Amino acid sequence: MTDPVTSATREPKSTVSPFSHPSHLSHLECTACGGRHDADRLLRLCPDCGKVLYARYDLAAARRTLTKESLALRPRGMWRWREIMPVRDASHIVSLGEGDTPLLRASRLGPNLFIKEEGVCPTGSFKARGISAAVSRARELGVTKVAIPSAGNAASALAAYGARAGMEVHAFMPVDTPLLNQKECVVYGAKVTLVRGLISDCAAIVRKRAEAEGWFDISTLKEPYRAEGKKTMGLELAEQFDWELPDAIIYPTGGGTGIVGMWKAFAELEAVGLIGPKRPRMISVQAENCAPIVRAFQRGLDHAPPWENASTRASGLRVPSAVADYLILQTIRESGGTALAVSEDEIDVALHEVAAREGIFAAPEGAATWAAAKRLYADGTLRPEQRVVLFDTGTGLKYPDFVQLDLEVVDP
Amino acid sequence: MTDPVTSATREPKSTVSPFSHPSHLSHLECTACGGRHDADRLLRLCPDCGKVLYARYDLAAARRTLTKESLALRPRGMWRWREIMPVRDASHIVSLGEGDTPLLRASRLGPNLFIKEEGVCPTGSFKARGISAAVSRARELGVTKVAIPSAGNAASALAAYGARAGMEVHAFMPVDTPLLNQKECVVYGAKVTLVRGLISDCAAIVRKRAEAEGWFDISTLKEPYRAEGKKTMGLELAEQFDWELPDAIIYPTGGGTGIVGMWKAFAELEAVGLIGPKRPRMISVQAENCAPIVRAFQRGLDHAPPWENASTRASGLRVPSAVADYLILQTIRESGGTALAVSEDEIDVALHEVAAREGIFAAPEGAATWAAAKRLYADGTLRPEQRVVLFDTGTGLKYPDFVQLDLEVVDP
Repeated sequence: MTDPVTSATREPKSTVSPFSHPSHLSHLECTACGGRHDADRLLRLCPDCGKVLYARYDLAAARRTLTKESLALRPRGMWRWREIMPVRDASHIVSLGEGDTPLLRASRLGPNLFIKEEGVCPTGSFKARGISAAVSRARELGVTKVAIPSAGNAASALAAYGARAGMEVHAFMPVDTPLLNQKECVVYGAKVTLVRGLISDCAAIVRKRAEAEGWFDISTLKEPYRAEGKKTMGLELAEQFDWELPDAIIYPTGGGTGIVGMWKAFAELEAVGLIGPKRPRMISVQAENCAPIVRAFQRGLDHAPPWENASTRASGLRVPSAVADYLILQTIRESGGTALAVSEDEIDVALHEVAAREGIFAAPEGAATWAAAKRLYADGTLRPEQRVVLFDTGTGLKYPDFVQLDLEVVDP
Repeated sequence: MTDPVTSATREPKSTVSPFSHPSHLSHLECTACGGRHDADRLLRLCPDCGKVLYARYDLAAARRTLTKESLALRPRGMWRWREIMPVRDASHIVSLGEGDTPLLRASRLGPNLFIKEEGVCPTGSFKARGISAAVSRARELGVTKVAIPSAGNAASALAAYGARAGMEVHAFMPVDTPLLNQKECVVYGAKVTLVRGLISDCAAIVRKRAEAEGWFDISTLKEPYRAEGKKTMGLELAEQFDWELPDAIIYPTGGGTGIVGMWKAFAELEAVGLIGPKRPRMISVQAENCAPIVRAFQRGLDHAPPWENASTRASGLRVPSAVADYLILQTIRESGGTALAVSEDEIDVALHEVAAREGIFAAPEGAATWAAAKRLYADGTLRPEQRVVLFDTGTGLKYPDFVQLDLEVVDP
């Protein structure tokens, strides 16, 4: 019968269950000081230098079973990448069927343009991936109460996965978070507090109260496992492009877990022999009124100073300061990519173009990638023959204010 | 590179593309008079008796390639059931990655209870399946303008798939259709008209204007192919339960395309040798204030008289009269199933229970199936050891009014 921990079909007799393979998680490694730490301790940031910890795997061992053929036969979903996912005991996996999202051609936008459509993830955004991984691993390590500062979608996802895991969930969101995000958290039974401020203010509150309350703070990249869920977007792209990565990936950057997670994924895929050295240019898109990464990239900085008075209707991009700023900037530079900011009007126009031409109601963050692509085609940074992937990180359904209604009403 | 017409991965070398197999569509058959008609003519209802037409296939031919092993290796999505899907030329398929939705255990609701989660379909509901099939086949048969009467989600889906196909879309919806459905249609560029009345009034307007306007009326079961998309829910269930169907399926019934489509799917699966004669009990759920099928079932009628003054917040169930009423009633009876109506309060409570316990924000129509299940467990109709599937037909995100907000606001 159906595997309880994935949404996927029970694998045909001929196939191998991903759960018959162990996770080859070996240790945690600091992305800054390089310190090595026990992966089975509940850690957040590097105990030595306070920077981001990455999960590391025995890739030589993973290589033996993580083959194209085996992957093709496994039940769908991000957990089929079992060998390079962090949960040791599959019974701890908390899944709502996340992963294996469509890669859709966007022929009416560009000749070699694709949209990685994350809007069909559980809870309607790519946040489901990181939260599924973090909640599953937290459960495995004994966590029962979690807290999160969120611009909206991460809290929605944590509320859902936390409910499924039977955890107590505490969400702190800016008071102007989209109403639907607030309602999702409430319907899932999370304890929600609205903060008159930005996500950075929410983060400060969680930081302050977590220890006393016994909450595990599951903020982006302040624990090692959300990035492991997000990296599966990169794993899937490699497979969806038949193991030859595209020429460019345009990614809307808030906390940046996806961009650094995918970069990590590509390195792991090469190490296990599934892809070669070719990498896409990683292109980061932010909003004009909250563009700390763009500014730091343009100034040649290694870190991104916090953005003052951040504001954008693309709530997922309203992140004035990212803990992984140095990793995001490294990734963009190593990949030969770039970073650019788009205006609120460009996002609005792009959102309507993507919907009317491709039938995809994108989140404003996703629409921002099309706004950016138009500029990059125009200035020659991108060429029509190159394979370019836009990330639509969520469904537009959570941003109804972007659509105006003025409809004819008739009698029967 | 990625197949343009599905969301799925480009299949590994070892596998067979579903598009290397032809559709074995053979003819159209009337479900009432049994008349046989040319499948390559653009037909809607039976030209002889005005009843529902079904697509029929050369199942002996389909049987040769539609094997468990082949299916397991094909790119994901409902179009991998190529041999028993209606589109002849794969280039006509209009896809947003629909199908292969999660089958999630609902252990915290019941020991052998599963939820088929359609809320992650493109446009957030199961309507994507039927509309993908109908739009694809209509395009293949030369249609460029489509019209639909809809309680909401079908119009949203038609607007999206129509946009992707470059078709002109005309949607007629009751004036009290959820705002998000209205906004979806608008963002996709459809021409939307609100009607002071019910979906049946919308249908009358489409019927009246279609010919003069050159619209193809794509109303549920008034053309043969939406049911072919919906039947894939049944095909997937068979595979997800490893080719042994569950004991009962609880399905929220508006137009009823899903319930009759799945029943048709099971017959086709048996004919091609993928399953045996065992069938689930098909259980139809409606809302107390719009329960034409339940009333007809209880009275032993073969047809369901229209429901007067239909009203329910579960907009997808606000269907006072279904063109396939006789097929729905036949299916319920043949399967040894039943039909029951639940109250608005029961739906509301169930919606919150499913969200808080399973992490699934269901549409009210989907929540109605859990409300029904509780009654059926209580009265012994369902037993805990039986495998029961609830259909969550859409995402709760489109029904924000079911969730009340009363949140604490704090300063940083």
